[in-house]
Parts: sequence; C-alpha cells; structure tokens
Amino acid sequence: MKNKIQALIDGKTKPRGSLGKIEELALKIALIQGSEQPCLKKPTIVVFAGDHGLADEGVSLYPKEVTSQMVMNFLKGGAAINVFCRQNGLELKVVDAGVDFDFPAEAALVHAKLGHGSRNILREPAMSREQCRRAMEEGRGLVAREHAQGCNVIGFGEMGIGNSSSASLLMHKFTALPLRDCTGRGSGHDDKGLAAKLDIVQACAGLYHPEEPLDVLATFGGLEIAMMCGAMLEADERKMLVLVDGFISGSAMLAASFMNSGIAARAIFSHVSGEAGHRAMLDFLHADPLLDLGLRLGEGTGAALAYPLLEAAVNFLNEMASFESAGISDKD
Amino acid sequence: MKNKIQALIDGKTKPRGSLGKIEELALKIALIQGSEQPCLKKPTIVVFAGDHGLADEGVSLYPKEVTSQMVMNFLKGGAAINVFCRQNGLELKVVDAGVDFDFPAEAALVHAKLGHGSRNILREPAMSREQCRRAMEEGRGLVAREHAQGCNVIGFGEMGIGNSSSASLLMHKFTALPLRDCTGRGSGHDDKGLAAKLDIVQACAGLYHPEEPLDVLATFGGLEIAMMCGAMLEADERKMLVLVDGFISGSAMLAASFMNSGIAARAIFSHVSGEAGHRAMLDFLHADPLLDLGLRLGEGTGAALAYPLLEAAVNFLNEMASFESAGISDKD
Repeated sequence: MKNKIQALIDGKTKPRGSLGKIEELALKIALIQGSEQPCLKKPTIVVFAGDHGLADEGVSLYPKEVTSQMVMNFLKGGAAINVFCRQNGLELKVVDAGVDFDFPAEAALVHAKLGHGSRNILREPAMSREQCRRAMEEGRGLVAREHAQGCNVIGFGEMGIGNSSSASLLMHKFTALPLRDCTGRGSGHDDKGLAAKLDIVQACAGLYHPEEPLDVLATFGGLEIAMMCGAMLEADERKMLVLVDGFISGSAMLAASFMNSGIAARAIFSHVSGEAGHRAMLDFLHADPLLDLGLRLGEGTGAALAYPLLEAAVNFLNEMASFESAGISDKD
Repeated sequence: MKNKIQALIDGKTKPRGSLGKIEELALKIALIQGSEQPCLKKPTIVVFAGDHGLADEGVSLYPKEVTSQMVMNFLKGGAAINVFCRQNGLELKVVDAGVDFDFPAEAALVHAKLGHGSRNILREPAMSREQCRRAMEEGRGLVAREHAQGCNVIGFGEMGIGNSSSASLLMHKFTALPLRDCTGRGSGHDDKGLAAKLDIVQACAGLYHPEEPLDVLATFGGLEIAMMCGAMLEADERKMLVLVDGFISGSAMLAASFMNSGIAARAIFSHVSGEAGHRAMLDFLHADPLLDLGLRLGEGTGAALAYPLLEAAVNFLNEMASFESAGISDKD
C-alpha cells in the first residue's frame, strides 16, 4: 500500500518531493484511510472547556470567569475559532467538560459537565481516577457520535483558564524533562508572573508521584484535557484523522500516546506554538508540525488554520495530472 | 493609523499577540489598504513562463521542453498550482513571457512572448537592457489590467527550466553573498549535479559586472523573472497586496527592491522553500515568511497555499468580537 501511494505521489507532474510536507501529509492520510483516493468528510473542531482549581492560586493572567465568558463568546460566534472555522468550512462543537458556571440548558453546546472544574492540585489531585475515566469515556462517546454522522477528520482544541499549568505538569511527568523546560508564559505572563507560575507547578509536582498514565492524567490534568484524551483515542481507533492543536491539546495527545503507543505517529500536528515547551513536547512525540506562526491562543485555532493544508494534500493526490497522463518528459 | 489598528487588534477577545504572525499580517494588510476593515478582492495568481538559454548547458535535471509542456498542463488544469488555486478560490493567469514554443493563438494564456527564451548566459547576457525593460513593462501592464478589474491581492509564480540558476546569479549579484550560498538543487540535483550547476553559474558570474539593477536583471535574469519584477513594482505602487512565492519569485522581488527600496517591507512572503539559499535571501530582505513546508516546486504554489492565512488575518480583524463587545474580563 505504502509503495503504491508513494509511486502515485512521485508520478505527479512535479519534481519528486517538491511539495515537501504536503506530500508527506498526503501519504499519511492515504495510509490512515487505506485509500489511494482519500477524502475529508464533515471536518469538525471540538473545543473542550473546563475550569481549574489551580487558577485560584493565580497561575493565569486572566480571572477564572473568563472560561465561561469565552464559552459564551464561542456560542455567539465572536471568537477566533469561530472566525477560522467559518472561513475554512469546519463545523465547531463546544463541549462543557467542567466549566465553573451553569450554562442554560438551551445553550448550543455539548453538555458533558463532570464538575465545576477540576480541584486545586496544590491541595488534592485534579480529578479522582474514576472522574478522569468518566471524562475520557465522555470524550470517546462524543467522537463516536461525530463519526456515526459521517465525520472523518476532527481537530481538538480547548478553553480553560489555568490549563497551561496542567499541561506543563503532564508534560513534565510524561517526558521526565525538567519542569522549567515544560512551563511557558501561558496567556502572556511577564518574567515575574512566569517565575510565580513555575513555583506553583513545582510545588504541585512534588506532591504526587503517580505511575500509571491514567493516574498521571487524573492527578495533574483537567476535565477538558481528560475528555480530549479520550476523544483522541477514540478518533484514532476509528481511523479518523486526528488534528492536534497546540500545547494543551498536545498534552492530551501525550497522555494518549502512553495509552496507545501508535497514536502520535498517526496524528497530524497542526502547528508549533509560541508557548515555551511546545517544541520539546513535539520532539518527544517525534512530531513534525505543519505551521509555525507563533500562535498561543488555543481554542483549536492552529488546527483550524492548518486545515486547508490537509485539503491541499488530499486534492493534490486526487486531482493532479501524472507525467504520463499529461505527456510531460520526466527527468529519467 | 498604525496605533489605531493595533488597538483594534489588541482589543479582540484573545491574549495580546496570541495570534502571532496572523496579527502582524492583519496590521500589514490594514496599513497597505489604509483601512481598519481590509478586504481581499479577486485574488489572483500569475504564473510567468519563460525558457532559458542556459538550460542548454544542463543546469537543470529536466529537459527544456518541460517548460512548454507544463504550460499546457496549467492550461488543462492538471498542475499543482491549478489544484491549489481551485481549492482556495484564486484566479489563475498563465503568461507566456518567453517560452521556446509557439502556443496556438487560441490558448487561454496571456500572450506576452518577447522571445523564444533568454540567451545562454555563458555566451552573452540573458537579455538586452531594452528587452528587459520591455519585459518589465509587459508585467506592469498586466497588473494594471488586473487591478482595473478589481483585483487587490496578487501572487507571483513562475515556470522555466533553468531559472533557478538565474535566480542564484541574481541573488549573488544583488546580495554579494558567495555564489555557493545562493545555489541549490533546483528541481532535485544530486551532489554531482549541484557541483556541475555551481561550476556553470560561477563561470557566468565571472563574465559580466553590471552595476545598475536593470542591467543586473537583464544580464542574469530571464524574461519571466523580468516580467514578474515589473509586475511586482506595479502592484506595489497600486497598493495591491503582493504575495511572493519561493526562490525564483523571491529573486524578482530582490531585483524590485533595488528599484523601489520600500517594496520588500510591504510584500507578503508566503513561504521559505526547501531550496538552499532561500532562507538567506529572505534574511537579506528582512522577510518573515508565513509557511515552512519544504516546498520547492515554484508555479506560485507556496503563494496559493499561504493565501488562506491572508483570509484569516482579514477575517479575524473584521469578524472577531472585542473584550468590550463580548463582555469579557480583560487581564487589566
């Protein structure tokens, strides 16, 4: 299969390899779909939102209520992810995984609230093992429903004030890299804010020493990260194309990769963000991101911006002429 | 104006600067258009095709007739640039600047042939000063017509077997960087082919020492590069958005920057290519490219692939809610 698709790519009217990462992406997509004529169906971005008890310690520049305010902004269509999804023809699903706010029942979001936020890691684990497992199951169920409706390409984003601290802790525990190298400015800390954030996550890291991947995720993650991790595992098992966003989405993929060792090689990493630590996280996962735009917003924005490159990969494979069909002299 | 647009960008519902290069691009586009509500109209890619006498010396891996064959492929819609233009809603114009083939009069291309290719630089200058000037005027006229029809964003690509050698020579003469650092594998030379190509361009470089930018362009360029250079200058003067493709398109912009010193700062550099020398060329122009996908195809493919990021920049500025309008707590 691989050789056949590679031959198809090499036969297109262009010097071999001259479409760079677009060619690699075409090969990856064709192999995942097991088809020489891959296709993208009902492309969807899912944004998981959840609050973090650790936000009470001041790890973020923004107050905790911004999580729910931004969810309302998503529902009204005014956030960056709304703009980019509309532009690129992506469906957007917003999931209340555990926001510290009671949304009206009629709000157009996926109501999957498993609590009013995860707990303050300085005092207790973010989630119980059981709560984390339930969050993962919710994520799996959501993806199964999307898949049943015909979606075969799905990107994962998040919203949660304080969640870059959880992602840093997960990265540190899973990669064994120094916490300093896993911790960035989040939504925009200055040096002093970054130092204070680092002090807090270092204190958190010293409190617990879980071994099992599920326990690491439960202890240091968050409801939206756990739900995303389950969603990624389910999408990969269903041979859907999994589009990873930035640092926090990446931390969910990192956890997933300890539960299913092949998932990261199949996932599509949309971008390397401006968040310190993200490049090292991608290196750990042997991931080669598509974009490098200095994004550090989350919400799935990197995934939405990278999506046209997936279309390009599929279209080039399906639509470009071959040297033979176009009657063009190859170099041989 | 600049402060006003920056304030608009900073007021959007996201941490400041968190959309990275998309924010910089939005500012640039708004300033060029002199509008807080920029827009993209009739986006167009122009592909200039021309042959090169130097191809007779074997500087390319492909035979010279591939230039005309690929032009026919463009007209039939089977090339990579066709696929990406269709996908991203871009109009495609193909220009016969000087292909060594007589296309039928009814062929759907811009007939601007100024010769059956440029001359073999090992024997004589690629073009006369007068021929180069005429090529630039043709390029200017073409852009003027596109502009008159409502186009305000235009990308520039090329097709011409042997033209990476011209681009290397132009880069060397304009930047004074060693020719070795300006010369790459083109359509895919191995080490031996690259060494042979370098020998030939080094011999060319030693033959002529023009001083004026127009003479440098005439001596070492090609008809398609000169036409593109004129087209870029005209588009910039008309405050259109100028989207530069890769190494050869970049060499036309480099020449243009010696004729209009502000043009490179206003141009949008779509990508850094896999061609050795392109990064140094971009650095010389203080250019920060949008994509880094290892492309080395030409045809304007990088410009076509980067175009959705221009849309994202414009859309985010026009459509995103502000902290104030969305009632979201800012960090201050």
